[in-house]
Amino acid sequence: MILDQNADPYTTGQAARQAVRAGRWAGPTAGLALGYVQANLVVLPQDCAFDFLRFCVRNPKPCPVLDVTAPGSPHPSSGWAQEADLRTDLPRYWLYENGQVAAELRDIVGHWRDDAVAFLLGCSFTFERAMLSAGLPVRHLECGCNVPMFRTNRCCQPAGMFQGPLVVSMRPVPSHLVVQAVQVTARYPAVHGAPVHIGDPAQLGIADLQRPDYGDPVPIYPGEVPLFWACGVTSQAVAQAIRLPWMITHAPGHMFITDRLDVELAIA
Amino acid sequence: MILDQNADPYTTGQAARQAVRAGRWAGPTAGLALGYVQANLVVLPQDCAFDFLRFCVRNPKPCPVLDVTAPGSPHPSSGWAQEADLRTDLPRYWLYENGQVAAELRDIVGHWRDDAVAFLLGCSFTFERAMLSAGLPVRHLECGCNVPMFRTNRCCQPAGMFQGPLVVSMRPVPSHLVVQAVQVTARYPAVHGAPVHIGDPAQLGIADLQRPDYGDPVPIYPGEVPLFWACGVTSQAVAQAIRLPWMITHAPGHMFITDRLDVELAIA
Repeated sequence: MILDQNADPYTTGQAARQAVRAGRWAGPTAGLALGYVQANLVVLPQDCAFDFLRFCVRNPKPCPVLDVTAPGSPHPSSGWAQEADLRTDLPRYWLYENGQVAAELRDIVGHWRDDAVAFLLGCSFTFERAMLSAGLPVRHLECGCNVPMFRTNRCCQPAGMFQGPLVVSMRPVPSHLVVQAVQVTARYPAVHGAPVHIGDPAQLGIADLQRPDYGDPVPIYPGEVPLFWACGVTSQAVAQAIRLPWMITHAPGHMFITDRLDVELAIA
Repeated sequence: MILDQNADPYTTGQAARQAVRAGRWAGPTAGLALGYVQANLVVLPQDCAFDFLRFCVRNPKPCPVLDVTAPGSPHPSSGWAQEADLRTDLPRYWLYENGQVAAELRDIVGHWRDDAVAFLLGCSFTFERAMLSAGLPVRHLECGCNVPMFRTNRCCQPAGMFQGPLVVSMRPVPSHLVVQAVQVTARYPAVHGAPVHIGDPAQLGIADLQRPDYGDPVPIYPGEVPLFWACGVTSQAVAQAIRLPWMITHAPGHMFITDRLDVELAIA
């Protein structure tokens, strides 16, 4: 794992993707090619792709759509990534069958289908360079682990067959920097934007911050407040909730890294 | 037509929709229920709806998606409009057949299909309250006519069968207020946001500003600069370009008025 920008061996999204494709990087992608836009992957059969895209439109906080491939194509738009292949360019994948994780995979070449449609949804790792630049801590980078993620008691707006709970990522922030954290991340709505909740995890139905549903736990120091951002893993919790027959996603925290920079997405 | 906010007889989106549905309003909707979010309507058969939604994702400036109905349903999400019916609640509709306007209609009850999917795309009329509040002129409101719209020489990003030219709306702005016009409208990306072009219409392939492709011409006074915003009528130019067999839209300038306020969409 990467502790700071100086230790990052990959200076561009393309370099990071090449390392992943060659098998030289298989870990979480937080801190990798810092400043390049990172994305959640959701691969679905074409027959439910339209309803899923409607679900994303209705739930733009957890599911901000960056790109959607043509049916059967594993290649994102060239504007997002040159010479990329979504079957090989993520460090780890999860294969969902009937809503359960059936396998963790290093590539999905053998699982690709002619009717597969791939969605790229913005990931909050994207705004971590801006957080660091603003003097905000990013605990999972300090700890060299994955970000902690939690299923909440909040329901998404349903669309067609798709419904389920909101998933959030959590970052602890010193109380005197909470306003700053809201302002910095609000500039990036395409990668989840401002937090959905500040403080008491019980209000989101989270019982224990040290037991995340996805990713790793991180310490919260005295004087710090947990901040919760909408997370693209929501799509995986939805698949679980509705027992979706077939879906492939990234393994939580193991994202697709694009060629675009965070600053291209900043809104103000 | 409405010349200023005081003359607007409809104080809410719902009141304006009721007037439209009852046949009491059949004109363009600029200036109506000023401050409420207005939307373009696109109705397509389900079999091309997914490709059209992918087209919108790739072209968020002209086609910012606000809502997509379930196949067969003419009712938008309750968050956008309570008790609304997209078959009756717009002042005028255009029925496209093989890419040509086959009919202008006051309602589309008799043309609705079981496989129809309705898209609501943000409309720039929404940010005209903010323009007026900032001291910017809105010439088509002053003149009591429709906004002028033009097909341009810029191509949209294609998706599936959908491809075609960008359409823009034009508002003249005194040169000393051009920066202000950019800043004010940039706050509303869900309704086209900042202009796509400032100044010389020839750079967009527009030969004569007094001969718009849709809507009405407006005067441009000495010292004013034409500003061009991406326009949802792009979807109609696309239908024409690809000779789409069947589509229903609003008549340009005759929009769907929602229950949400412009301020809910402002990003900064």
